[in-house]
Amino acid sequence: MIILKILNHAYITDVPGFKAAGIHCGVKKSKKDLCIIYSEEKTVAAGTFTTNIVKAAPIIMNMNHIQSHNTQAIVVNSGNANACTGPKGLEDAYHMAKTVADCLDLSPQEVLVGSTGIIGLPLPMNIITPGIKKACNALSSMGGGDAAEAIMTTDTFSKKLTVEIDIDGKKIRISGMAKGSGMIHPNMATMLSFIVSDIKISKEMLSIALKSSVEDSYNMISVDGDMSTNDMVIAMANGVAENTLIDSENDDFIKFKEALDFLNKELAKMIAKDGEGATKLIEVSLYHAKTLEDAKSCAKSVISSSLVKSAFFGSDANWGRIMCALGYSRGNFIPGKVDISFQNQLGHVTLLKDGKPLDFDEKLAKDILDADYINIIIDLKDGSHKSTAWGCDLSYDYVKINGSYRS
Amino acid sequence: MIILKILNHAYITDVPGFKAAGIHCGVKKSKKDLCIIYSEEKTVAAGTFTTNIVKAAPIIMNMNHIQSHNTQAIVVNSGNANACTGPKGLEDAYHMAKTVADCLDLSPQEVLVGSTGIIGLPLPMNIITPGIKKACNALSSMGGGDAAEAIMTTDTFSKKLTVEIDIDGKKIRISGMAKGSGMIHPNMATMLSFIVSDIKISKEMLSIALKSSVEDSYNMISVDGDMSTNDMVIAMANGVAENTLIDSENDDFIKFKEALDFLNKELAKMIAKDGEGATKLIEVSLYHAKTLEDAKSCAKSVISSSLVKSAFFGSDANWGRIMCALGYSRGNFIPGKVDISFQNQLGHVTLLKDGKPLDFDEKLAKDILDADYINIIIDLKDGSHKSTAWGCDLSYDYVKINGSYRS
Repeated sequence: MIILKILNHAYITDVPGFKAAGIHCGVKKSKKDLCIIYSEEKTVAAGTFTTNIVKAAPIIMNMNHIQSHNTQAIVVNSGNANACTGPKGLEDAYHMAKTVADCLDLSPQEVLVGSTGIIGLPLPMNIITPGIKKACNALSSMGGGDAAEAIMTTDTFSKKLTVEIDIDGKKIRISGMAKGSGMIHPNMATMLSFIVSDIKISKEMLSIALKSSVEDSYNMISVDGDMSTNDMVIAMANGVAENTLIDSENDDFIKFKEALDFLNKELAKMIAKDGEGATKLIEVSLYHAKTLEDAKSCAKSVISSSLVKSAFFGSDANWGRIMCALGYSRGNFIPGKVDISFQNQLGHVTLLKDGKPLDFDEKLAKDILDADYINIIIDLKDGSHKSTAWGCDLSYDYVKINGSYRS
Repeated sequence: MIILKILNHAYITDVPGFKAAGIHCGVKKSKKDLCIIYSEEKTVAAGTFTTNIVKAAPIIMNMNHIQSHNTQAIVVNSGNANACTGPKGLEDAYHMAKTVADCLDLSPQEVLVGSTGIIGLPLPMNIITPGIKKACNALSSMGGGDAAEAIMTTDTFSKKLTVEIDIDGKKIRISGMAKGSGMIHPNMATMLSFIVSDIKISKEMLSIALKSSVEDSYNMISVDGDMSTNDMVIAMANGVAENTLIDSENDDFIKFKEALDFLNKELAKMIAKDGEGATKLIEVSLYHAKTLEDAKSCAKSVISSSLVKSAFFGSDANWGRIMCALGYSRGNFIPGKVDISFQNQLGHVTLLKDGKPLDFDEKLAKDILDADYINIIIDLKDGSHKSTAWGCDLSYDYVKINGSYRS
């Protein structure tokens, strides 16, 4: 286990060498809608992009720009996704990058672009271009909070975190900000996450660390690994911490990777918790599956089930719905071996043992389920692989129908 | 196109030789909860059962009983699913079959059992056994309506239909009754459908017809082909129409198959329309996919998307969500070729042409979307395969968040 310090404040600008700005330019009525993250030094960057066949214009452009060996800025607008906008959309995305590059004396390839919001409408470039110039002028080492706000759409709070670790005798900071408010099917909600660090690491190693970390964090919240037209996670490292360059999977790499995993999982949980109308964070811990694939399929199927989620909203200990979701997950397991229990700070209650219902303490189960965090523990007792997935309950009237089905 | 007559009333007992009964035995508080369908003559039967790894006890038993070359009765209880009930559950399912067999002078293997309701609770056999005896005594050629009522759970109306066709100079009737109230994820809602006919057909041919028909009907409503622990579709044919036995895929078979397809699609649509809280029936017609697999994946992905469904509740012509759902469907297509339009009795409006948004008549689109039936037409222009899927909108407060997202 890694020792890491969590900073009280949590801004992208906590990391030495990074500046940021978040402003209102007019894509949205009155809320902040444009942000820039800027590194004074050259950085290496890594990115993961949506696997959706329909990719938004900035995603298509970024998949090219991310090849650059220097990435110094990210510009993001909220309110308009610049998706399904054809060749004009690509031009607009490029124009956004070029405007930033011109202001900050970079080449357009050194700038990445993010967009989130409505699909199919052209970007209002007459608003965005002057907005970008204004944001570039507003860049400061105090701008992290504004930047995190400016990427929000239906999010009810901004998701951000900064951690600090010691590597090679140096204090290394990693800070991230994310958006994505769950929705019913998070695979449709745009999920954006931007991570910056002052670690000295090769582009290749940063990319390896990020890809693996995304698998176990953002790709394990609700529903499946499918993504919206605009999803992306970007990491930038400027190397100003002056640690010995990490260019292999050595001990320093492992330390960094653990801290990055922690950060990404925490941001992913914040996204899960902020699901539209959510009242509870649900964590599914799936143990002893035959393969990692089985573990992930089973965990994701349970966290994605609307009937499971609505049962949790109604504090209904409906383990039958969990069994059913496991059963159609396409993960392999033996129903007669499954144990299911719920736990959190209020206690632990086992509902199913070897596939058979137990008489359980309904009062304790209700208390556990009434809390705002519930851990569903599923033991398949069929192998050595584990997986964790996060999601939220489904609230609102319509869910009452399902939430009270059992009682 | 086949010529078929739809009967005004629609009872399983419309078919000569079939009796039925539906009674209240006490599993539910006051509504009918037990039904029996009985053929006076020997019948051949075919069945399709849930693909869920976790199978309810009656499903496990039926997969054996359906091998019998004579099936004369089906008994169904609602209120309790007899799922995840271990060896005791299997005993109970068998005891239900045996009780029917004893009353009607059959062997238990000649009886099939259905259960729907809560998972994980033992069946109250002290209520069900006398209930079965009472229902056997109540069997009548007028009992079809009661039987259809007794299989309902959260359904708001009973789903039933009788059609009549001419085959080999004989009038052939096919009647079906189904339950399943959509829910958010219909793959979790138990879907039961029972079809009876007086056609003379071999067990093998009936099975071929049913399996293929289920693929294009019940397996194409909302979500995916995955099913609950209890889903099943059973068809019985008693041969009293005295047509020449259908024992190959000849013209008579094709005629019968077309009528069966019609019946099953209509029942499937009734299930889709009765989704919990649904206000609209949505039909997705997917044209010109490269493969049938692509066509089905794309159609199902659109009809299963909660964001698409909620946009329809809000009468929001949000074609971007449709594109997004196509994009993560795992079906192959070229985004730049896609056409999307909406149509119904009020008109036709094209929103997307060759992957690019059109200026469309917002007023007409709103009128079309305000109706209780909307046909989404998607043309991939990339092959020759088509598929149709049905679902409903997502209503209720929580959906308002998504339903009004675009406006």
